[in-house]
Amino acid sequence: MDIHHQHPNLLEWNELIEQAMVDPSSEPILNLAEDSDGEYDAVFIGGGAGGRFGAAYMKAMGGRPLIIDAWPFLGGSCPHQACVPHHLFSEAAEELDRMKWFSGQLFFPDFDADRASILDLIHLFRAGRGTAHAFMNWQTKEQLDVDYVLNAHATIVNSTTVSAAGRTFRARNLVLGMGARPVWPDIPGLDLHGVHDFVTLVEELDYEPQSCVIIGGSKVAMEYGSFFHATGCSTTIVSRSALMRTRSLHHIDEDLRLYVVDGMRKRGMTVLEGAHPVRVNGEDGRVVSVTVRLESGDEVDIPTDFVFMGTGERPLVQQAQEVLGIEINDSGRVVVDKRMRSSVPGVYAIGDMIDGPMEMFKARKSGVTAARNIMGEDLEFDFSEYPDSLHTTYEVSWVGLTEAEAREAYDDVIIIQMPPTVKGLDTEHLPLPCAEGTMLYAFSKPELSGFQKLVVDADSRRVLGAHHVGYGAKDAFQYLDYLIHRPEGLTIDTLGWMNELFLNPEHFVQLSRLRAGNAVLRDL
Amino acid sequence: MDIHHQHPNLLEWNELIEQAMVDPSSEPILNLAEDSDGEYDAVFIGGGAGGRFGAAYMKAMGGRPLIIDAWPFLGGSCPHQACVPHHLFSEAAEELDRMKWFSGQLFFPDFDADRASILDLIHLFRAGRGTAHAFMNWQTKEQLDVDYVLNAHATIVNSTTVSAAGRTFRARNLVLGMGARPVWPDIPGLDLHGVHDFVTLVEELDYEPQSCVIIGGSKVAMEYGSFFHATGCSTTIVSRSALMRTRSLHHIDEDLRLYVVDGMRKRGMTVLEGAHPVRVNGEDGRVVSVTVRLESGDEVDIPTDFVFMGTGERPLVQQAQEVLGIEINDSGRVVVDKRMRSSVPGVYAIGDMIDGPMEMFKARKSGVTAARNIMGEDLEFDFSEYPDSLHTTYEVSWVGLTEAEAREAYDDVIIIQMPPTVKGLDTEHLPLPCAEGTMLYAFSKPELSGFQKLVVDADSRRVLGAHHVGYGAKDAFQYLDYLIHRPEGLTIDTLGWMNELFLNPEHFVQLSRLRAGNAVLRDL
Repeated sequence: MDIHHQHPNLLEWNELIEQAMVDPSSEPILNLAEDSDGEYDAVFIGGGAGGRFGAAYMKAMGGRPLIIDAWPFLGGSCPHQACVPHHLFSEAAEELDRMKWFSGQLFFPDFDADRASILDLIHLFRAGRGTAHAFMNWQTKEQLDVDYVLNAHATIVNSTTVSAAGRTFRARNLVLGMGARPVWPDIPGLDLHGVHDFVTLVEELDYEPQSCVIIGGSKVAMEYGSFFHATGCSTTIVSRSALMRTRSLHHIDEDLRLYVVDGMRKRGMTVLEGAHPVRVNGEDGRVVSVTVRLESGDEVDIPTDFVFMGTGERPLVQQAQEVLGIEINDSGRVVVDKRMRSSVPGVYAIGDMIDGPMEMFKARKSGVTAARNIMGEDLEFDFSEYPDSLHTTYEVSWVGLTEAEAREAYDDVIIIQMPPTVKGLDTEHLPLPCAEGTMLYAFSKPELSGFQKLVVDADSRRVLGAHHVGYGAKDAFQYLDYLIHRPEGLTIDTLGWMNELFLNPEHFVQLSRLRAGNAVLRDL
Repeated sequence: MDIHHQHPNLLEWNELIEQAMVDPSSEPILNLAEDSDGEYDAVFIGGGAGGRFGAAYMKAMGGRPLIIDAWPFLGGSCPHQACVPHHLFSEAAEELDRMKWFSGQLFFPDFDADRASILDLIHLFRAGRGTAHAFMNWQTKEQLDVDYVLNAHATIVNSTTVSAAGRTFRARNLVLGMGARPVWPDIPGLDLHGVHDFVTLVEELDYEPQSCVIIGGSKVAMEYGSFFHATGCSTTIVSRSALMRTRSLHHIDEDLRLYVVDGMRKRGMTVLEGAHPVRVNGEDGRVVSVTVRLESGDEVDIPTDFVFMGTGERPLVQQAQEVLGIEINDSGRVVVDKRMRSSVPGVYAIGDMIDGPMEMFKARKSGVTAARNIMGEDLEFDFSEYPDSLHTTYEVSWVGLTEAEAREAYDDVIIIQMPPTVKGLDTEHLPLPCAEGTMLYAFSKPELSGFQKLVVDADSRRVLGAHHVGYGAKDAFQYLDYLIHRPEGLTIDTLGWMNELFLNPEHFVQLSRLRAGNAVLRDL
């Protein structure tokens, strides 16, 4: 079905996508404006974040891109199974957390854990996700003008030829953006009913878990674990390394880490660090407990009816490896240079296929980088430095150096922090910081109102890092990242002279101003 | 009582302040480290945001400042009666609003308007505000090293002499930062029980209002009105001008304005624009209704037990006018130049005493500007351009030009907007934009999930303005303000190459990236 000369509206797109999802024999959806027999500048295999943004950028530059995706929609796993449901669940977690702390106080009714259903929220997500899919198909066709073939598996013939939907497409280049899937370790019992990851959770969960054991210490483990626990599903995290000390997270300040992990424990979660999952035990085919070897070496059985795997993801490289002989590194990712070029001439790889954080900015910008290089620009994308964030029942954001990293690298580091660390002063119960999202906490349970830290090189007066636990600051970290990493950096003087929007969720502007008058900077 | 050689902790400060507040005959609190008989570089009259930041900056530069304040705490009206309670109430409004929309759905219990009490929240605020006061007294003494005299009226003797607490202080300069107080228009009936402004609300409200009539269309009117209404106190706003079209707000984009005001109406508030309050009517000394002349000329009586004045503020200039003969403009504000110098040599005025927005950034930075000029720097503070924000049940933030302003000034303006305006496409029910705070709305009531618009000059590719209704973006606008107004501006290319933290509350980075590949920019 080629819909190029039709202009489905969002409702019509929704129906098309729904039909394709339920009917495995449904036909491919083609949107081919260009002469599809001619040579494309690139075929993007995979229309997720990287492929869609890369193709859109190439088209905007006057190039000829084609996207092929196995799903009947563009946008990839993010709106279907990954970041979007995670954000929905994390918002619910924040809300439920507040409703629990304030149970029966102020305008909050008594908290009723029976009302808080994981299944309900999954159903809400599943009922609604199609609209975002529809929008991306619509936008990519009508606003971005990009050709695509959906609901069709791409078969790589060689580095300039791909077949899909019974057609053969030729291209100067291939851009591989097939994404990644959760990977499970080799532990007995993972085939039992009641073992899920973030994909099967939204697709298959068919009962209401009463308790949860999370295996793994990844971002996903912390985020989904915090959500499950907030719904009243008592949660234990079993992590080999200390939370937030995994290789995949960089620049985690220890004070921030402690605030976050203590915050999880304060809410009743059990966090077992240095613990190894031994096996998942079942009865009648269903999970009943997880055997865990603790840091002490002791083995314990943790009863549970639900196991969630937060043990990372691995990219879908098999076809590229088999057909193209593309080079893969020890982590199973495609080896690329800073232009996203793989070991095979004319073949690029992007997004979760390559090293680096499995984050949206990297997916999209790696796609755009591939597109711009294919179109003749000489552009490198360096994602060795970037801002990062995660949810627990808080939003946690950070960028740049931690205090410890800064003290390693610079002679004279000062710290500007809220609440401040002052000997003999009980600042834990200080209602600061406060702003959007922490006002009720500040006035009722001030120890829950967040944490923020600015790391500054006293000599150059430059901000080296910023760290925040609370609400409402994540967006600011995009700009702090840009400002800190531009060649001239961001001095405390420039930051302190900005126009704050009070009560600003991060108090960095005004706190910097309180110190900027000093010729010799001091802690605050 | 001179506490300079003592070091009260937060609890002790709290007690000191509480005692002073309840006992009108309590003695002044002196913190005088310097030789207080010598000449100060400046006496800051008023230790609110402007005075405190100005004095702290002067001290940091090596100067000799003294603060005198009539209250027993530093920080001024913000943490005592103004911005801090407003933020607490606005957070409650956001929370109550969500609880109402989701009443009985998902994990939200049936909404019980009887639980939502204005009085409860006022009591919560009053019980807690002392801790922030204590912190500011503590910080200003122990971390910022600034001398102060609190709980003492300052009497201006002349432009270099002030007396307070039975002492006389000499200074090279005076910095006037006495702030402003709400002003009420001349309408019969305002002396009835049940008429309040934001000051008397937190200090004196002694019953639970059932309905509310707001007189005035200021930010305060919109913010407190949205809060009252969210608690179940049915609210009518009586405003002469259209909401957000008042002289005191600049750069209000019409699409943003409509989203915000329609949002208030959608929640059941009555917004009467072009309406004049005629009189407040009472029985037994209590408010029973407000007579309003509508835009049509008809007069109506609106029954209510509570009237809230949102008709602006006027600075406390009387003493400076009488003693110093300082020049005051038509709005009753002290006339200053860009160095904060008044018409009287050596006398500066800052904060709400002078023209411009009565906002925190202006208060603090005008104080710092006065300090730096007094200390010999030649520094101008231009606050003709700044980012702004307000709360309804949303956070509303904006900076730079509106679409209409941009089209006036530039030949080729493009708009990047979410949800997009597309002919024939039902985008109101699109679950976009979404991110922190709007996920539940996006999946349940997408028409409530916000609005965002970027205004771009297609020729220079520069961002001219940014406008946002939703949650979590306010902090970003501080940096957008800086980036847009720096000499080189912020192009769509630079913005589109930043590292977003997905789902970012404002989608400006990725939306810009979808267009940045175009040599000739187009709407999105």
